Amino acid sequence: MAEVQVHTAGGEYTVYIGRRVYEGELVETMRRLRPGKTAILSHPSIDRMHGRRLRAAVAALPSTAAEPLSFLFPEGEEHKNLQTLEKAYVALLSGGIAREDVVLAFGGGVVGDLAGFAASTYMRGIRFLQIPTTLMAMVDSSVGGKVGVDLPGAKNAVGSFYQPQAVISDLEVLDTLPERELRSGLAEVVKYGFLYDENILETMEGWTAGMPEAGAELEDLIARCVEHKARVVALDELDLRGERAMLNYGHTFGHALESAAGYGRLRHGEAVAMGMLMAARASEMSGLAGSGLMEMHRKAILPVLGEVRLPSDLGPKRILADMQADKKKTRGLRFVLLEGPRKPHLVESLSEEIVRKAVRETLEELKEG
Amino acid sequence: MAEVQVHTAGGEYTVYIGRRVYEGELVETMRRLRPGKTAILSHPSIDRMHGRRLRAAVAALPSTAAEPLSFLFPEGEEHKNLQTLEKAYVALLSGGIAREDVVLAFGGGVVGDLAGFAASTYMRGIRFLQIPTTLMAMVDSSVGGKVGVDLPGAKNAVGSFYQPQAVISDLEVLDTLPERELRSGLAEVVKYGFLYDENILETMEGWTAGMPEAGAELEDLIARCVEHKARVVALDELDLRGERAMLNYGHTFGHALESAAGYGRLRHGEAVAMGMLMAARASEMSGLAGSGLMEMHRKAILPVLGEVRLPSDLGPKRILADMQADKKKTRGLRFVLLEGPRKPHLVESLSEEIVRKAVRETLEELKEG
Repeated sequence: MAEVQVHTAGGEYTVYIGRRVYEGELVETMRRLRPGKTAILSHPSIDRMHGRRLRAAVAALPSTAAEPLSFLFPEGEEHKNLQTLEKAYVALLSGGIAREDVVLAFGGGVVGDLAGFAASTYMRGIRFLQIPTTLMAMVDSSVGGKVGVDLPGAKNAVGSFYQPQAVISDLEVLDTLPERELRSGLAEVVKYGFLYDENILETMEGWTAGMPEAGAELEDLIARCVEHKARVVALDELDLRGERAMLNYGHTFGHALESAAGYGRLRHGEAVAMGMLMAARASEMSGLAGSGLMEMHRKAILPVLGEVRLPSDLGPKRILADMQADKKKTRGLRFVLLEGPRKPHLVESLSEEIVRKAVRETLEELKEG
Repeated sequence: MAEVQVHTAGGEYTVYIGRRVYEGELVETMRRLRPGKTAILSHPSIDRMHGRRLRAAVAALPSTAAEPLSFLFPEGEEHKNLQTLEKAYVALLSGGIAREDVVLAFGGGVVGDLAGFAASTYMRGIRFLQIPTTLMAMVDSSVGGKVGVDLPGAKNAVGSFYQPQAVISDLEVLDTLPERELRSGLAEVVKYGFLYDENILETMEGWTAGMPEAGAELEDLIARCVEHKARVVALDELDLRGERAMLNYGHTFGHALESAAGYGRLRHGEAVAMGMLMAARASEMSGLAGSGLMEMHRKAILPVLGEVRLPSDLGPKRILADMQADKKKTRGLRFVLLEGPRKPHLVESLSEEIVRKAVRETLEELKEG
């Protein structure tokens, strides 16, 4: 088992990563928190697959906290909205959840974001645990306190910075995670590799026989990513100083791709992986990076993408239009580019010419069939 | 003009109280904040009456911030909900409000709570000003960072602690405030008198000729209340240590009264005033206070209530049922009782017998006709 400490103004907490963490550290954490009641916020499928283990862990608690309230909502980014949030609040209220109680955010990024935001605002804030069940959420979204929901056309437009009491990442749940979800999570791992830690990329290069088991090697890789995330979040909890913005490597291109392809068609990690290919190409084109960066990216990213390619009818036009819309909303569009591995730059004025070319050429390379 | 400093972990800011503050300190504050854009959240009636002065104040700003976006929503606690909040978010989003911008919460308690919560969560928090237009909001709700909305049957069940950049209380808006609203605000002034400051009560006793003008005396009274509020909030920003809970003097009874009478029938301050009469009676009955406390309360509160009485069909049963429902939700019902002026106690176990008797006898005294 690996432990990573997170230190922020909004709270100090531990990220536990390993097999059978529900049976050990989760039970201990809940005993320490001593909630009057507990509420599980999750998806039906996750509750069906792993809920028994989670319930067994809290059943060890005294009194009413041992029988948690459940609020289950459908999967998909399209449900991370104010309507689901309202249903969650009403469920907490009618279940009698009060200020001293604890919410368990049990699922992937969508659950962590929505349940964390519900916890941050219900009764002006009650305690919660992040219990991520996807690699993506373990590596990235469960750590650092960014929680929220989407507005129509605007991802994460409503939210808070609100730190959990602990993050409980049990690798056993990854045994049943579909390979495509696992690959999607690895895209974020690659991101940490390029941003901060080439050892991560080297480790992954060794996986010639396909995806790894959810064992010691993956545990170490997740812990390394979480250490980087924790360091960045400690420096820039509220995303004001630029450090935290670096974590958006591949995301400006990736978000536009995700939205232009239609949500649900690409996994978030897949879009970020393709976005990193575009960002690397733009880094070379702009002269910031020497040639070779693209090739390094291909080597790291193509195995993670596996068979996933872009629909052949997806042209650069829609992607660029989506970026323009984003630019209008946020008054400017910021790109993270690389001078080389471990040398990210936040670029506020990338020429449209380079953006267009990077998108077009990468699309060409990633087209189906 | 009076200035009160507020010091909290969530922010340091100034409360400005006086006539013509929009023309002076508001303009200066906005120049200091340098927003890219501004958004006014308010009610149509307030915008109609005072919007011109507010717009003139921000018109002095450079660029697009000089022409604020407006989101106006209907008056009444019943609109302080997630549906109005969603409309506010969408208005901010389609108006292109971004993270560096400023929301102006321009109205009474409902506007301050809803607009403040919108600001605290839009884009994970943007800056806002409290610009209260009722005495109630100037004295109490605009200071201290409690913002939020109601869920069906649960006041303020969703919210945050989020401090404004400044509070701008311009007394000129009180000139057109209906007398009943002014009286309702005075109930909170009386509350501060009993909790912390008998001089407040003495000042008010001098008002034999009716309500005061919105001049120097009222300015001083508001500033004194805000000083007390600021001190309490600095000690206990997150309402965890008991100090802030004392500010609920009269509120446990008052909330039940408000809800049992039907929202809108009693002003919040009227319900709190009546609630303080009940709390004083309960303080005497429980032996915590000597006799005389009730009489002091009658002397201070009855002039503030004026002609307002309770509907004669309102029996103690509904009020007690409402308190029971509250008790169930929050696992326990806390009362603030007084040993005497300036000696509040937080009481977690007041006998049902005393509660019932205090409610019944006060109802009898406050009945119509």
